[in-house]
Amino acid sequence: MTFTKKNVSVSQGPDPRTSIQTERANSKFDPVTMNYFLEGSKERSELMKSLAQQIERDPILFTDGSYYDLTKDQQRELTVLKINRLSRYREGDSVDTFNKRLSIMGVVDPQVATRIGVNLGLFLSCISGNGTAEQFKYWAIDKGTHNIQGLYGCFGMTELGHGSNVAGVETTATFDKETDEFVINTSHIGATKWWIGGAAHSATHCSVYARLVVDGKDYGVKTFVVPLRDSNHDLMPGVTVGDIGAKMGRDGIDNGWIQFSNVRIPRFFMLQKFCKVSAEGEVVLPPLEQLSYSALLGGRVMMVLDSYRMLARVSTIALRYAIGRRQFKGDNVDQNDPNALETQLIDYPLHQKRLFPYLAAAYVVSTGALKVEHTIQSTLATLDAAVENNDTTAIFKSIDDMKSLFIDSGSLKATTTWLAAEAIDQCRQACGGHGYSSYNGFAKAFNDWVVQCTWEGDNNVLSLSVGKPIIKQIIGIEDSGKTVRGSTAFLNQVKDFTGSNASKVVLNNTSDLNDINKVIKSIEVAIIRLAHEAAISVRKESLDFAGAELVQISKLKAHHYLLTEFVKRVGEFEHKELVPFLNTIGRLYSATVVLDKFAGVFLTFNVASPQAITDLASTQIPKLCAEVRPNVVAYTDSFQQSDMVINSAIGKYDGDVYENYFDLVKQLNPPKNTKAPYTAALEGMLNRPSLEARERYEKSDETAAILSK
Amino acid sequence: MTFTKKNVSVSQGPDPRTSIQTERANSKFDPVTMNYFLEGSKERSELMKSLAQQIERDPILFTDGSYYDLTKDQQRELTVLKINRLSRYREGDSVDTFNKRLSIMGVVDPQVATRIGVNLGLFLSCISGNGTAEQFKYWAIDKGTHNIQGLYGCFGMTELGHGSNVAGVETTATFDKETDEFVINTSHIGATKWWIGGAAHSATHCSVYARLVVDGKDYGVKTFVVPLRDSNHDLMPGVTVGDIGAKMGRDGIDNGWIQFSNVRIPRFFMLQKFCKVSAEGEVVLPPLEQLSYSALLGGRVMMVLDSYRMLARVSTIALRYAIGRRQFKGDNVDQNDPNALETQLIDYPLHQKRLFPYLAAAYVVSTGALKVEHTIQSTLATLDAAVENNDTTAIFKSIDDMKSLFIDSGSLKATTTWLAAEAIDQCRQACGGHGYSSYNGFAKAFNDWVVQCTWEGDNNVLSLSVGKPIIKQIIGIEDSGKTVRGSTAFLNQVKDFTGSNASKVVLNNTSDLNDINKVIKSIEVAIIRLAHEAAISVRKESLDFAGAELVQISKLKAHHYLLTEFVKRVGEFEHKELVPFLNTIGRLYSATVVLDKFAGVFLTFNVASPQAITDLASTQIPKLCAEVRPNVVAYTDSFQQSDMVINSAIGKYDGDVYENYFDLVKQLNPPKNTKAPYTAALEGMLNRPSLEARERYEKSDETAAILSK
Repeated sequence: MTFTKKNVSVSQGPDPRTSIQTERANSKFDPVTMNYFLEGSKERSELMKSLAQQIERDPILFTDGSYYDLTKDQQRELTVLKINRLSRYREGDSVDTFNKRLSIMGVVDPQVATRIGVNLGLFLSCISGNGTAEQFKYWAIDKGTHNIQGLYGCFGMTELGHGSNVAGVETTATFDKETDEFVINTSHIGATKWWIGGAAHSATHCSVYARLVVDGKDYGVKTFVVPLRDSNHDLMPGVTVGDIGAKMGRDGIDNGWIQFSNVRIPRFFMLQKFCKVSAEGEVVLPPLEQLSYSALLGGRVMMVLDSYRMLARVSTIALRYAIGRRQFKGDNVDQNDPNALETQLIDYPLHQKRLFPYLAAAYVVSTGALKVEHTIQSTLATLDAAVENNDTTAIFKSIDDMKSLFIDSGSLKATTTWLAAEAIDQCRQACGGHGYSSYNGFAKAFNDWVVQCTWEGDNNVLSLSVGKPIIKQIIGIEDSGKTVRGSTAFLNQVKDFTGSNASKVVLNNTSDLNDINKVIKSIEVAIIRLAHEAAISVRKESLDFAGAELVQISKLKAHHYLLTEFVKRVGEFEHKELVPFLNTIGRLYSATVVLDKFAGVFLTFNVASPQAITDLASTQIPKLCAEVRPNVVAYTDSFQQSDMVINSAIGKYDGDVYENYFDLVKQLNPPKNTKAPYTAALEGMLNRPSLEARERYEKSDETAAILSK
Repeated sequence: MTFTKKNVSVSQGPDPRTSIQTERANSKFDPVTMNYFLEGSKERSELMKSLAQQIERDPILFTDGSYYDLTKDQQRELTVLKINRLSRYREGDSVDTFNKRLSIMGVVDPQVATRIGVNLGLFLSCISGNGTAEQFKYWAIDKGTHNIQGLYGCFGMTELGHGSNVAGVETTATFDKETDEFVINTSHIGATKWWIGGAAHSATHCSVYARLVVDGKDYGVKTFVVPLRDSNHDLMPGVTVGDIGAKMGRDGIDNGWIQFSNVRIPRFFMLQKFCKVSAEGEVVLPPLEQLSYSALLGGRVMMVLDSYRMLARVSTIALRYAIGRRQFKGDNVDQNDPNALETQLIDYPLHQKRLFPYLAAAYVVSTGALKVEHTIQSTLATLDAAVENNDTTAIFKSIDDMKSLFIDSGSLKATTTWLAAEAIDQCRQACGGHGYSSYNGFAKAFNDWVVQCTWEGDNNVLSLSVGKPIIKQIIGIEDSGKTVRGSTAFLNQVKDFTGSNASKVVLNNTSDLNDINKVIKSIEVAIIRLAHEAAISVRKESLDFAGAELVQISKLKAHHYLLTEFVKRVGEFEHKELVPFLNTIGRLYSATVVLDKFAGVFLTFNVASPQAITDLASTQIPKLCAEVRPNVVAYTDSFQQSDMVINSAIGKYDGDVYENYFDLVKQLNPPKNTKAPYTAALEGMLNRPSLEARERYEKSDETAAILSK
């Protein structure tokens, strides 16, 4: 018997720590510099780390494994304590810095980020997007809302009966000329506002999406600020609010339902940047109804960013575990050597193929997230300036940009949140049984995450809304020779790749697979041919019949955007020594997330040759995985996520998988409690008298003899 | 204003109830009769319903929406109360009847089924599979274990460091000739028994998998019964047990870890049907090491059955909701009619394509589950008889059958549990936001379910263990002309479909797609060509390099088994009027779960023509969905799952989606609680003094003037 490490051991146990440390020491590039690429710049990278450090050191915001043991009630309360704490940082932060802080909280404790995001993101975005500058100043600044003080807003869009179809909401805002008020009413159970984050307990005000009714005429859905609670936090009369209760995840958020029973608000509580109602009941309508949904755009950026951070986090956990964990003696081990160690999971080609795509996706999505964030900010600023100057031409130019933005951000939101959901699930499975323990991080990650695929535009509905204009554009080009501008301009090549050119192959061989620009081209051709084919049935039947194709088009559109931006950013990156490592990542993403996933489409439409797809599986993917393999520790360390952010016993930096995990389990569930609190029930069952005794021997032969006489 | 239903409404709300009831009335077949097909016979169908009724009426076993609000501690205790209750039914049931009861509990409250299954399934199966008849009688019958009385067993296979590689476990059982005892020891942290269901609080005994060491020689992994707790439920000396803590799901199970520190057990506590150690230390080894894993076979059957019931349950919820829910005016609605109702979700072709495959899968998996259950029972009985009679020839024949069974049950377990996991996730997403509410059933279903993909043989590892012998068989045929028998005999046709026949297409057109037998044939060819291609790289490199292909082969093998059995059962079904409806289901399964999913493989290897795959998407799948559509209510009612089994507010039989859901939310979260228990923290934050006041005006101009003097 020996002492190894801290305990007595009879024999040498597993030593995952040495594996990861050896590999870290042999890394071929510097993770700190690589993080500049992922976060956009050296300055941004360093700001993110200093913000993470503040969270780590903060007594309330600090999060560890005990977080996974909290009940719903405990989560609700702790979430408020954390929001309270963050409100103090908010008072000193710029909006941009606070958003970065929230982006870290989005990984560390997403329910906190959301519960704040509903107030500062959705509620205030609704007011800034639909209200005048004065209205925004009043509700956001003067009342303290932007500092999470005074007022707390929630976002009253979704109803029990209407989620995706916002234009169909049934809450009414009827103008009463007599009193110069709107009467807000929930007309029936289906119009009950539902899923409203912050409504159950927090919110004092709600930005309500309701049908504007003036003189009996329905003007469609507009936005109104409706007080829910007074300054004593008591519900206003006519306002009913309830708690939605238990959810799959994010139990720290007090989602609620709201019913309005003829609640009166002053006319000027209507948000009137675009739409106005005069005291006489004259209605001015906005140039584009969808402008009132611009409140959702900021959330979409956050979700693409969240996807990057989640992909980074879960791939780090699974890959660190895969380096430390050994199981079976694989083909790389001398089977006759009894002292040979078992094979590291990460050295199995299947394991590489299962995990490396998510590592690559984290890198590629990071660049797309930064790009779309920048585009949204500039587009909204341009629109605001145009509205400010009452410049109609500029307004309509901005509306065109907004339409492109809805397409790009919609396809990105849907595609990247799906990808991250898949990553969490697959990374969990790749950690076997230990992935199922809450303390290793995947369980809550998944449960908290998947709502991102549903809220603020259900991913399927969003994907359809991206696919439909693309089909219409193809039909426009083919039937009327209309030219397309913007991010789908590649559709103009439709004739070069359909009809007599329908069998022109873009990806013929391994050399084509290696060329990311050719892969980008091939995605364009795949979209064109899919859209061309779908357009045929759309002309015969209707758009609804092309639903499955529209979703595929939306996904491919997102990959096109992401890869294009990735290649551009790699080209601009000043640290040239890292470029080869980034190119490997880009090729791996192309090979796995795009080509392997869509092999059916690429083959059906002759975009890739069968030989190219066979090579993809047998040669290209294994070759790229082998290129990634020696630097897996560096690639994951590059995310620069500390142990608190990772919050996974098997995913810690030191790689001491088993000791870390066992210590945490014992700390949170002390083994000295050898009996359960309910042990009486258990022991009572095991030590119960025999069935015969409990039946009072009524079925015995003796009893039978007596009773049969 | 009118009174509609029970509440005052201003206007007519949604009426999902009428939709479902109208469709139910128009069903074209009888669900009660269809259930005979799903459950195997009229008798079995009626038995299942009478068992479900007992559970529904039992005060403790009855389960409703409040179940979704329980904390981990509450779940743990309630689970024991339910087990206690079930133990009373067990005393009167046959083993077969009790297993059927457990199969229902597997849907209603899976953690109860598992916590019992570990004892009656794994622990006792280990003893019956590895112990002599006398050992089984002693531990199982005489001590009361089979009635959940006296003893409670757990199953000590997995260790912290070894899960999939059971042959690598490191707990030791060293024979001490002096005392005629085995010394059970946990040699280091990695050998800690881990994830052991029932260990933390319930188990009195453990069937321990440990390395047999006699006279310094390691004889590999054998099985031993080791007492953990005495009759007073106190831990035995040398035994340390701890609680694993929070898990992704199944929190009602007290999974634990166990360390043995030189714990002594009598020699005859070793299970010795196949392996024996004499008092002198002579060791008799079993004819096949894997025989000791037969304990896992019963669990695999249960999991395929569970997959059927879960597919049935979640597809019922999502489809009932899809019938009641209306959103947007789709292309089937007159857009100019302001009074037209919105389109039912289920009438969108994309929605059909998303959901109908899981409906079809429930039907097809049900037949495979019944078949494999029967095969396992007869194979184990034959083996036992052979061992009883000491008939070596028969033993080796049985071992051959066992090997086939490991392949078939392994591919089925992996493929169907993955399919059910995907179904839960996709059905949840198809219900939009409401799918995320715990009260609609998907959240706990998913969290409880996914461990099925990991435990008792990780799905990837199992799939590899299915794929590997198939590759070896192909290599045997190609290189040495060996003929294969059993369920993979179709591999013998390899020459007919490779080499100069590699481009022979099996599925050419829609008529081929309609012929299920041709689809079955095409799966054989796909497996042959995949295996042939993989064998090329296996010969060059090694089996590890074909990992991804092995997993695909395993999945296709399972679909081959399931479709073959489905066709057979449909052919034998006496209620001929139902056969057309079943054939539609079989074709839909072929088109979606097999061909659409594996389009890349079928195209790459010329098993299907590009035209056939194009037709599949554009014609075949929409046509089959249209055939299913009018009878969706009948198809789902055929599962005969009552509201308690479904346990989903939006999935109830009456289809009154919104009223049911709203009522449950209000019942479990009474709106009269208008403030949160933690409202002081919330109000304190909102009503805090200004930053300047809290900073004691130290940063004011006045202070600056003073301090700068």
